[in-house]
Parts: sequence; structure tokens; C-alpha cells
Amino acid sequence: MSDSGTGRRQWLGLTAAIAALVSACRRTSTPQDSAQRALGKPVSPYGERSPFETEARFMPEVRFPEASTSLTPLQDSCGILTPSSLHYERHHSGVPRIDPASHQLLIHGQVDCPTIFSLEDIKRLPSISRIYFLECSGNTRWIEPAAATAQQTHGLASCSEWTGVPLSLLLSEVGVQKSARWILAEGADACKMQRSLPVEKAMDDILVAWGQNGEALRPEQGYPLRLLAPGWEGNVSVKWLRRIEAVEEPYMTRDETARYTDLMPDGSARMFTFVMDAKSIITYPSGGQRIKAGFCEVTGLAWSGRARVRRVEVSVDGGNTWIDAKLQEPVLDRAFVRFRLPWRWDGGECRIQSRATDESGYVQPSREELIAIRGVHSDYHNNAIKVWKIAVDGQVSGA
Amino acid sequence: MSDSGTGRRQWLGLTAAIAALVSACRRTSTPQDSAQRALGKPVSPYGERSPFETEARFMPEVRFPEASTSLTPLQDSCGILTPSSLHYERHHSGVPRIDPASHQLLIHGQVDCPTIFSLEDIKRLPSISRIYFLECSGNTRWIEPAAATAQQTHGLASCSEWTGVPLSLLLSEVGVQKSARWILAEGADACKMQRSLPVEKAMDDILVAWGQNGEALRPEQGYPLRLLAPGWEGNVSVKWLRRIEAVEEPYMTRDETARYTDLMPDGSARMFTFVMDAKSIITYPSGGQRIKAGFCEVTGLAWSGRARVRRVEVSVDGGNTWIDAKLQEPVLDRAFVRFRLPWRWDGGECRIQSRATDESGYVQPSREELIAIRGVHSDYHNNAIKVWKIAVDGQVSGA
Repeated sequence: MSDSGTGRRQWLGLTAAIAALVSACRRTSTPQDSAQRALGKPVSPYGERSPFETEARFMPEVRFPEASTSLTPLQDSCGILTPSSLHYERHHSGVPRIDPASHQLLIHGQVDCPTIFSLEDIKRLPSISRIYFLECSGNTRWIEPAAATAQQTHGLASCSEWTGVPLSLLLSEVGVQKSARWILAEGADACKMQRSLPVEKAMDDILVAWGQNGEALRPEQGYPLRLLAPGWEGNVSVKWLRRIEAVEEPYMTRDETARYTDLMPDGSARMFTFVMDAKSIITYPSGGQRIKAGFCEVTGLAWSGRARVRRVEVSVDGGNTWIDAKLQEPVLDRAFVRFRLPWRWDGGECRIQSRATDESGYVQPSREELIAIRGVHSDYHNNAIKVWKIAVDGQVSGA
Repeated sequence: MSDSGTGRRQWLGLTAAIAALVSACRRTSTPQDSAQRALGKPVSPYGERSPFETEARFMPEVRFPEASTSLTPLQDSCGILTPSSLHYERHHSGVPRIDPASHQLLIHGQVDCPTIFSLEDIKRLPSISRIYFLECSGNTRWIEPAAATAQQTHGLASCSEWTGVPLSLLLSEVGVQKSARWILAEGADACKMQRSLPVEKAMDDILVAWGQNGEALRPEQGYPLRLLAPGWEGNVSVKWLRRIEAVEEPYMTRDETARYTDLMPDGSARMFTFVMDAKSIITYPSGGQRIKAGFCEVTGLAWSGRARVRRVEVSVDGGNTWIDAKLQEPVLDRAFVRFRLPWRWDGGECRIQSRATDESGYVQPSREELIAIRGVHSDYHNNAIKVWKIAVDGQVSGA
């Protein structure tokens, strides 16, 4: 079955629906002639988007916008990549202005040779590029207003191509000692954001990244240097990376004790909950949008920090029956996956939702299933199925 | 063998070279303390790059910058994606300013139901996203100054994730008649750029694209609608698409007769040379850069419009011996492929070059091989191997 979905369209009887949609377009034999006749703009050194485009990150109203978030407009996304300009933000003391010529990374602690790397040193080493999602563990609250958009409920997740040096290479070269089971990573922002990470992950697939989507990291995403821990909660991918210390035990920093820890129903604290579990969201149709009866391509994004996404199912009848959506190639490990399902909306009220399964066999839970285990006292790691309600007038809202 | 190249490093005896490079970094046990203490910038709606970053498209000096080119800085590229702001440009009468609310696409000619589509109509149809390179057939001249950079010699090539509706879907729905063997595609720019395309390709994999790298097309890349003909010379991927006419024969437009046609040594004209053959270029080290003796990761880009890239070989001894470079995953069909080869430069003068082979078995030719067949009277389709010379002072230039 091709991605253009010919087979599926026939199976779902959608060919007629698409034909009807096309028929609704203006049938004509008279060519329009609205094209312009004056010369357009000349070539330019660094392009900008059209002034007609106004997509923007959503910024909740807060007292300190330097210690806040901005969310990616997922409802307008296409494909699997997030433009760097629209990548979500989570800062703890604002975006520092860093001169790359003077920025340094110190690796010290329980290592044979404490070493300071300049950015030039790091860029001379062998590098790799990978398309990975990044998601804040605080993405998606337990209670969201019905009017909330996909951006407001799920926009603390984005996906980019990251380029950098394997952290394992740096750690091997400075000689991490056997006693060191953890590393502490520290940012160069005013609060010196710190997180502890197990050496196993550091030696596995973490990048010390300097590139994003084919150019230098953006300032909001850690320019000129950041950690990128694939599949793990965004907070540990420390931005503006300035220091790595090899240590025996986790440092128990503010951001792994007072924050980024899950309060369980019995009052205990779930700590170092690094992995982001499988999650998905329908981005069209989604909250705040309004659809017309007839053909509608249901589309959205799925991701998992544990393994490759294997399957996304969509229900358009409140969860009674599920249909496999088409996963768009390439389906990459720990990257956004775009799913699509052609559908014909009959104009009746209904509830639509998606459910991701990854190659580890993990199935995205319902809200009820997740709350039964986790309670609602933690702000983190809510990967529950998101249900949208479509009203008879086509208006979509949170269910 | 992992992408981080541990196996290869050992094979080439490079572990010691990397260790030497790291040893050259500042060994220290005293942490730096240059981090800032003041709050940084707040979150923002649409991010911009760091003011320290100055990468730009190269714009040759011309009389009419509205009918000109700008070239992607490939020597600074990382990964396989080109930022939309740095995607190469080739305009024939400038970049038009188009209001997407009023833009229309007419499909007419030898079709059952001539139809006008609004942008909204098209975005309602099933779409797909693909990462594809785009290359101007005029990329790379036969004679280049020795001082030319990779950007100046090969920068009319870029790679993006494109989202759009299969053209085959639109053509099927309007009912292309059997007599129509070609389509004419026309842009809404002042010159109404026109190209003829065979119906077979139109029914195969051409997109009517409205998305690029996760957001709307950029104005320079055809906002709000363009053709995207995977693997074919960029000129046929008509930008600012306003009209498609189904016709019996090619239209013989200016841009397929006076231009974009190859003058052969015997005076005949090779026309409709759509496919971009396999090509590659080393982007580091490349013209204008200066390297230091010791470890050096040789990296570059390869692509083919005919099939997936299967192999990239690198020679560091003027073409006497060739070593297989590592192709970075994912290796996508008709997308840029990033290749990497760890190397130790001994400080002696040498010539380095790369050679791509695609899955059709096509091998990128040397300049001599290509000229023997093609002559030098055509400005198009020069996919010859590019040789860089490294001088004893580390300066890289065209050979």
C-alpha cells in the first residue's frame, strides 16, 4: 500500500468522498489571471518566512517569562520536523547570550585527565547527526480546559535533527574512573541548571550537540553546546553545557528533588524517571479547529523514548473500535512519527483519539489507567491518550 | 560498526590520533567560572539564530538580483537538512508576494473537469511528507576558480522535508484524458515560469507541496504552493504554482529550449534531461578552509536523483586508492546522505575527493570522463568528482 493511500481509500470507500471534495472546488474552463506582473524580491542572504504566516509558540502568562515555557504549535505541524524557530522552550533563568569563541566545556571529577574543551576542540572530533524528539516531562497536565489546543496540551514536545559528538567519546578520552557511576551536567545559564545522569546512558547514546536542523543550535536550545539524551525527559538534556563532573552518586540537585520528581498517591516520590513513555496526539482535527462534513485526513504525531513506534491506532467512535493509521516513512528511533488516516466525517457528534504502541510492546494508556497507578499529584510524565470531541457544528474541543 | 566509528577508528589506528587531539586541549583541575549571573532573555514566539552566527547564502554579483541565484553554505552544513533560511535560490523574475487566501491552482487542458483549487481545498486532501534534495541543473561549473568554496561550486543544492498532496491525486480527480502525455506547469511569478513534464512522472511521485521543514513553504521556495519533482532538476519543481495544463506534447517553453538544454560537442541539443545523476562533495575539509595536522574527520554530502545512494568512497591520495566512507543513517531515497571518514592528515600536500555510487549501479564520473562524453559547452548537469588540494600549510583549495 502506497503512502498516498490509494488502497486504503478504496478500502474505506473514500474515493467517492475525495471526488466529492474535489467536485466542491470551482469547476471552470476559464483560467484565472491574478498573477503579478512586477518583478518580485531579489535573492537574499538569509531567508524569512512569509508575512502572511503567523504561527507562534504559545507563551502562558507568567510573572517571570525568563523562567517559563513556550509551546510548539503542533496543530499546524506537518511532517516530523519542528522548525527551530518554533521548537518548544523551557528555561529556568532565561536564555544566556554566549560568545562561542570563549565558551568552554570542563570535564572533571573522577576522571584521569580533567580537561577543558573549546567549541573548536569539540567540532574537530568525529560527530554524528540524528533526528530525535525532545519532550519536557511536564508536557500535558492532568486537567486541561476544554478549549485548549494541541499546542497548549502537548506543545512541550518538538523534533529536530541534532549534530554533535558522542559524549562517550569525550568521557573515554578523559578517562572516567570506575568509581564514577553518575555524571553531573551543568548549564551556563544564570541558575546553573544541574542534572545527574547515570554513566551507562552517558556511554550509550547521549550527544554533546552543537548543530540543530543543519545549522548551529539556536540560543533557546542551548547555543553553542548542549546535551541531547535521546528519549529522556528534556530537562536532562542540559543546555548551554559548561561542565560535566564524574561522580559516585547522583548530586540530588534542586531539579531532581524539588522538581522533576513524581509524587505518587501513597506520598512516596518516584525519582529519576528519565524515559519518556510512548505517547501520541491527533493534531488534525484538534482543539480549536473546525472541520466540515465529508472527507477529512486524520493526522498526528506519535513518539516513544523507549523504542521505535510500531503502531498507532485511531478511534473515531469514543474508543469502541480502533483502526491502524498509516505510519509515514521513515519511522525513526526516538523521533516523531507522523500518522495519517483518511476518514469521512458524517457530521454527527463523535470522539476521536489515538493510541501509540512501541516496539517494546508498551501501549499508551488511557487517562483512567494512568491515574489508577500514578494518581494526579505529579505534574510529570502524563502520556495518557488524548480525546477530542467533535460537535455537530464541526467545532473540536477537549473531551 | 557503530556510527561513532569505534571499529573504524581502531582499524585506521585513529584512537591514538583522537587521544592526541584531546590531549592538546587544556588539561586542568580548576573549573572555569565564566558563566553569567544575570537573567537571560525570556521565552519568545518565534526564535532567531544567535547574533554570533553569520552563515549566509552566497549571492554572485549580477545586474539583476531578481533573476539570479543564491547558494547554500555547504561547507558549514551538518547532518542532511538545510535550514529553510539557507536553502538555495534560483529566481527568474524575483520572489512574488502572494496572499495564500487568494492564491489558486487551475488544472485544465485535456482533462474531464477543469478545476480551480484554493490552498484550503488542497490542504484538506491526503498529504505526505518526504525528505528530498533539490539541485539546480546549473549547479557546478566546468571551470571554477581555485579559491572557490564548496558553497560556490556546489551550493545550488539543498535538502528539506517537503509536505504536500500527490499530484497524481489531483490529476486523477480532474480526469486527465488519454491523449494528454505531458503537463505544463506554470508559476505565478512575473515571468510565469513554465516547464513541461511527462504525465508518467506526474502520476508517479511529484508533490504539490505547501510545507517545508515543518512549516509553510518559504517565499523563496514557492510560497504558498510549488511542485516538487523528486530527483529531477530543480527548475521543473515550479514555484508559486498557479496552473497545470494537460497537453499532448511538451510546450517547448523558453526554459526548456533556450535554457535547461545541454549543447553537446557535435552541436546537437540534449533536451529534457530531467534526472540529476549521482554526485557528492567533501564539505570538510573544503575550499577556503584551513586544517591542522593530526586527526580530521572528512565529511560531506552525496545524492542521486536516480536511486538511493549505496556507497561513497573517499580518496586522500589523488585517486590512487579509495576507502569506503560511513553513510549516516537514515539513507533516504533522493535525499542528501551524510558521509564521514575519520582520517589523520600527516601534514603533506595531498588531493582529496569523494565518489558516489547509487543503487542503480551508476558511479559518479571524473571530470575527464564526463567531458569526454559531454564536452564543455553546456552549463548543466556537471556531476563530476570534485577534487580539493590541501597545501602543506593546511590551506584547502580547488585542484
